[in-house]
Amino acid sequence: MTQVIVLNGGSSSGKSGIARCLQAVLPDPWLSLSVDTLVDAMPLSLRSSDAGIDFAADGEVIVGPEFAKLDAAWTEGVAAMARAGARIVVDDVFLGGAGSQQRWQKRLDGLDVLWVGVRCDSAVAAAREVARGDRVAGMAASQADVVHEGVYYDLEVDTTRREALDCARAIAERVTRAQ
Amino acid sequence: MTQVIVLNGGSSSGKSGIARCLQAVLPDPWLSLSVDTLVDAMPLSLRSSDAGIDFAADGEVIVGPEFAKLDAAWTEGVAAMARAGARIVVDDVFLGGAGSQQRWQKRLDGLDVLWVGVRCDSAVAAAREVARGDRVAGMAASQADVVHEGVYYDLEVDTTRREALDCARAIAERVTRAQ
Amino acid sequence: MTQVIVLNGGSSSGKSGIARCLQAVLPDPWLSLSVDTLVDAMPLSLRSSDAGIDFAADGEVIVGPEFAKLDAAWTEGVAAMARAGARIVVDDVFLGGAGSQQRWQKRLDGLDVLWVGVRCDSAVAAAREVARGDRVAGMAASQADVVHEGVYYDLEVDTTRREALDCARAIAERVTRAQ
Amino acid sequence: MTQVIVLNGGSSSGKSGIARCLQAVLPDPWLSLSVDTLVDAMPLSLRSSDAGIDFAADGEVIVGPEFAKLDAAWTEGVAAMARAGARIVVDDVFLGGAGSQQRWQKRLDGLDVLWVGVRCDSAVAAAREVARGDRVAGMAASQADVVHEGVYYDLEVDTTRREALDCARAIAERVTRAQ
Repeated sequence: MTQVIVLNGGSSSGKSGIARCLQAVLPDPWLSLSVDTLVDAMPLSLRSSDAGIDFAADGEVIVGPEFAKLDAAWTEGVAAMARAGARIVVDDVFLGGAGSQQRWQKRLDGLDVLWVGVRCDSAVAAAREVARGDRVAGMAASQADVVHEGVYYDLEVDTTRREALDCARAIAERVTRAQ
Repeated sequence: MTQVIVLNGGSSSGKSGIARCLQAVLPDPWLSLSVDTLVDAMPLSLRSSDAGIDFAADGEVIVGPEFAKLDAAWTEGVAAMARAGARIVVDDVFLGGAGSQQRWQKRLDGLDVLWVGVRCDSAVAAAREVARGDRVAGMAASQADVVHEGVYYDLEVDTTRREALDCARAIAERVTRAQ
Repeated sequence: MTQVIVLNGGSSSGKSGIARCLQAVLPDPWLSLSVDTLVDAMPLSLRSSDAGIDFAADGEVIVGPEFAKLDAAWTEGVAAMARAGARIVVDDVFLGGAGSQQRWQKRLDGLDVLWVGVRCDSAVAAAREVARGDRVAGMAASQADVVHEGVYYDLEVDTTRREALDCARAIAERVTRAQ
Repeated sequence: MTQVIVLNGGSSSGKSGIARCLQAVLPDPWLSLSVDTLVDAMPLSLRSSDAGIDFAADGEVIVGPEFAKLDAAWTEGVAAMARAGARIVVDDVFLGGAGSQQRWQKRLDGLDVLWVGVRCDSAVAAAREVARGDRVAGMAASQADVVHEGVYYDLEVDTTRREALDCARAIAERVTRAQ
């Protein structure tokens, strides 16, 4: 039985929309947690500082030591929720590529995880970033490819020309249910 | 010189995204106002009541007499902003089709208006409604076609397979500037 | 009959809460519009630029020429909504004191306006700014007194030790109804 | 060393404001998590259904079996985050009084927890609920007393006449730091 679905993709690639659609199409109730959930839980001071997370003018995201420490505890906690019986969709941005995945693999050890890559053409993601109007310009383009470098996936979806709901249905087909 | 751009389309057809992209691509500053701006300005009691606006379980929107009265004053005010020199993108949902357009035509009399229809395939709009996760299910499908009935447009765009930014660029090309 | 209620006070003085309470206690439906409604309608580029509105590190708000131009059209439009029959609660921050009031007085000419000062002790407003967690630190303290300089009021309320709902009730008592 | 601060109080008693102030005044970075974080992570279908959480017209909150199951996993996960080194402020509404506290006590076993009661006069909380304008009317009044029944606290604060920041300072004084 799939216990955790990890969606990895750049900013504005459509991860949150897919997560909401997964909650709608999967027969059981799934929790949807995201790196944004973690950022929102952090002190205001860490949300824009060298010790926390910072957004350079060109959209680059810089993560500091205090952020990394809280992030480690957060991922540990998400794994514990899954072990305690909650089925969880996590969406994240693997800024460190394969290294970011290893940090989740270590914490999710022993759990049945479905790894999903969420691709989106860089120019299209950048266009959607403008339409959203709430993100630092440049994040979508700068993250589009780098987050997938060296990452292992069970399944990849591409939102460039496919609706989030269709992507979610493809993912849902791969989710196994306990007998 | 175009003074007002009116975007009309059903729920989840992509109007707000196009409005934000228009603000980004048009060289002068434009205000973006929407029927949501009006709804947010209303008393909580009118936001879900027979006298105000109500959302049936199937997504149908019912507008009452008090809502209509405030809406009339609102459109009058938006026209006055344009006459006072602000360039404005309005996005609306013409639940009454041609009748809804006439109400704007009357208020915007004498202003240079660009009428834009925002189309989106009904099934795709319904899928995007699920991905947004913040709208009453069924609104997108029930409004997709009816809002365009008998409505005159200078230009129509279709978000089914075209990004909001591209649609905005096509609209921006049609916006005339004073010499 | 009072047609417009103007609430003026510094950031975190409690204006929005009073506006919502006024909508709840006044027998007729009133629209609630704020300088935040205007800022949200502006292009992203004007929300943080020299031409638009800018927030200095110490919380000072700097308004540029493009902002001022759109603001002028906006206030004209709000006045037109009131003339067209909508009863409106406006909340604003008179950064220019008496000068900011004159700009409204000119636009609201001929309308029956109730001018309300919303006071809050500077240290208390600063404390509430921390509790909100979504405002630039320092705005509350820097605006607390300056916004009232030379301003005429029909009524003043103080939220330092009085709930927004009580303040709203005091204001509602002063609102006259048509016979 | 205090590892978890649990704030318990009724709706509109001021818990979130205190949590944000605690993050601002405590020297180390603390995560702030709330029952709202959990509700936001749930599928839309559970947010208003018999199986999930439901809000009766009088403001009563009804929690169903699916909600309770995810809540159990959630609290387990929050405890794991604390064990992994994150310091956490949790704010919750103990609808079941002492029973709700026992569920946390069981999960937080072995951790150094500071239990804080957040009181607010029922009429004042109801007034603040109107000023917020985003909560079901009646929740504040119906929860004000019942959530404290039989609950053990290390410290109680009362927001009726005291600012969130002052309450946070009182709590911060009781937080012990590792030597």
